Amino acid sequence: MIWGIHMNAVIGTWKMSLEGIRNASGLLSAGCPAGDAVEKAIVLVEDEPSYVSVGYGGLPDRDGHVMTDAAFMDGSTLRIGGVMSVESVRNPIKLAHRLCGRQTNCLLAGDGAVQAAREFGLPMRDMRTEESMRRWREACAASSGTGKAYTGHDTVCVLALDNMGKMSAGTSTSGLFMKAPGRVGDSPLIGSGFYCDDRFGAAAATGLGEDIMRGCLSYETVSLMRRGADPTTACREALEFLVSRKRALGEDSGAISLIALAPDGSFGAATTLAVFPFTTGTDDQISLWTVGYNDPIPRKVSPDKVESD
Amino acid sequence: MIWGIHMNAVIGTWKMSLEGIRNASGLLSAGCPAGDAVEKAIVLVEDEPSYVSVGYGGLPDRDGHVMTDAAFMDGSTLRIGGVMSVESVRNPIKLAHRLCGRQTNCLLAGDGAVQAAREFGLPMRDMRTEESMRRWREACAASSGTGKAYTGHDTVCVLALDNMGKMSAGTSTSGLFMKAPGRVGDSPLIGSGFYCDDRFGAAAATGLGEDIMRGCLSYETVSLMRRGADPTTACREALEFLVSRKRALGEDSGAISLIALAPDGSFGAATTLAVFPFTTGTDDQISLWTVGYNDPIPRKVSPDKVESD
Repeated sequence: MIWGIHMNAVIGTWKMSLEGIRNASGLLSAGCPAGDAVEKAIVLVEDEPSYVSVGYGGLPDRDGHVMTDAAFMDGSTLRIGGVMSVESVRNPIKLAHRLCGRQTNCLLAGDGAVQAAREFGLPMRDMRTEESMRRWREACAASSGTGKAYTGHDTVCVLALDNMGKMSAGTSTSGLFMKAPGRVGDSPLIGSGFYCDDRFGAAAATGLGEDIMRGCLSYETVSLMRRGADPTTACREALEFLVSRKRALGEDSGAISLIALAPDGSFGAATTLAVFPFTTGTDDQISLWTVGYNDPIPRKVSPDKVESD
Repeated sequence: MIWGIHMNAVIGTWKMSLEGIRNASGLLSAGCPAGDAVEKAIVLVEDEPSYVSVGYGGLPDRDGHVMTDAAFMDGSTLRIGGVMSVESVRNPIKLAHRLCGRQTNCLLAGDGAVQAAREFGLPMRDMRTEESMRRWREACAASSGTGKAYTGHDTVCVLALDNMGKMSAGTSTSGLFMKAPGRVGDSPLIGSGFYCDDRFGAAAATGLGEDIMRGCLSYETVSLMRRGADPTTACREALEFLVSRKRALGEDSGAISLIALAPDGSFGAATTLAVFPFTTGTDDQISLWTVGYNDPIPRKVSPDKVESD
């Protein structure tokens, strides 16, 4: 399924990406490279404290630390930058973008990533908010210290195509609420959380990272586009391949959503959820869409009709 | 190309895996599950201080710390366990194996992984040896503190098939010598360093992690087996797909090697190197092989003919 051929296009996960996508789309139409548009869109989400699963105000791990993961991929060079389990870096996506292009040491975990942020002169920040710590204290009390992880589903992923035909992908998340210290999900893992190749397209995932990894869902989606599938079909087939395997193992389908963007600017999505919202900007037209597991054709909706972020 | 149909089989990267493969092969023939055989083979390599790229005696990062990465994948459930940037855990593969099966928090970085090792009661160890620290001091002196990373190529990867038809994969490495603090390579990343699916086969990679990731080479190799390729053809096609892209970008082919094992016990490998040694145990017969970029058909060799580990 093709929704038009576009000079430039950008797609983001969840309603929370709407303002970032609006901003990125304007930049792309003004001739901005895809990578800068991706970074800008994600920075806006990271800086907004009301989004509790990304950046500032993100929900803490079991020990009360807000630990973030982020990644960036350049579809022209297939190079990535990524950071995992990072505390106190204000914009993890900026750090991931700066690490991209390094021949070695482009993927960094923990204190080493923080050290790199300082070397780049990137701003630091206490990522905790009163609200995020209030929810952490409530969760600690409710779980009586057992620290059961919330199986949430809220990474911001942005894929962009610029006027030069170049593509980029970015992801950013604070991960599972009440996760174990050091837990890393799919978002900073190439092939699982994201993949981007100018020649075939880009894809990214949001949901329970531990499940997304099992199917390398973003690489599988791009691989299906390489073999001729349109973005929505590619997302659906990649998702169904894993879900049918999970079913055979006696597991339910879980919470996984995928977005994809083709080199011609057409886009698509698929989800195991009843409703998954995503946003697009194509040649300056900004839209919010929803797709559902039993309603697999994306439809345009008005922002006031979508409750979740 | 098929090298026989085997009741059980195990394959490992580099000559250093030979004793581990011998041990694992005996276990498999005695009815041991693939996962335990993989763990046992890798533990033998981790514990041997003369192998300077894995476990005890591994070469340090720029700051003089021996930081290890490891992963384990169960081909029946597609579940993984993995650890990244971990210091002082004696056997990172044991920790990865124990994390496998968790629905969440199965991939851990840094101090969180060390904390999990303590919770499992796994032994700790100072992973530095006099020899590894001597080489670190020499490298510091030679690089005048610039800390250029050695682009080495030495992860131990083991893939096994047991008598019940179940498959597992494992990897373990101390990563690039003189790497930046927190640097993570392909070895703990599903799809890049390893992938294993009982239905189609298993693959694993060794070489410059930052390059291996760009092509999600292990997932791509298993994906080609799923589409009917034999293990050697799958390794070669996956490798060539990335190498031709690198060539188009003006980059040389780098240092990448792949091994693969099919559900019928046939195996294969491919490399960009002049000579890449790997080891196999099939129905108790232990062999050392080499393959080369210009010599792509694996040939059996005598251990005293292979110089590198």
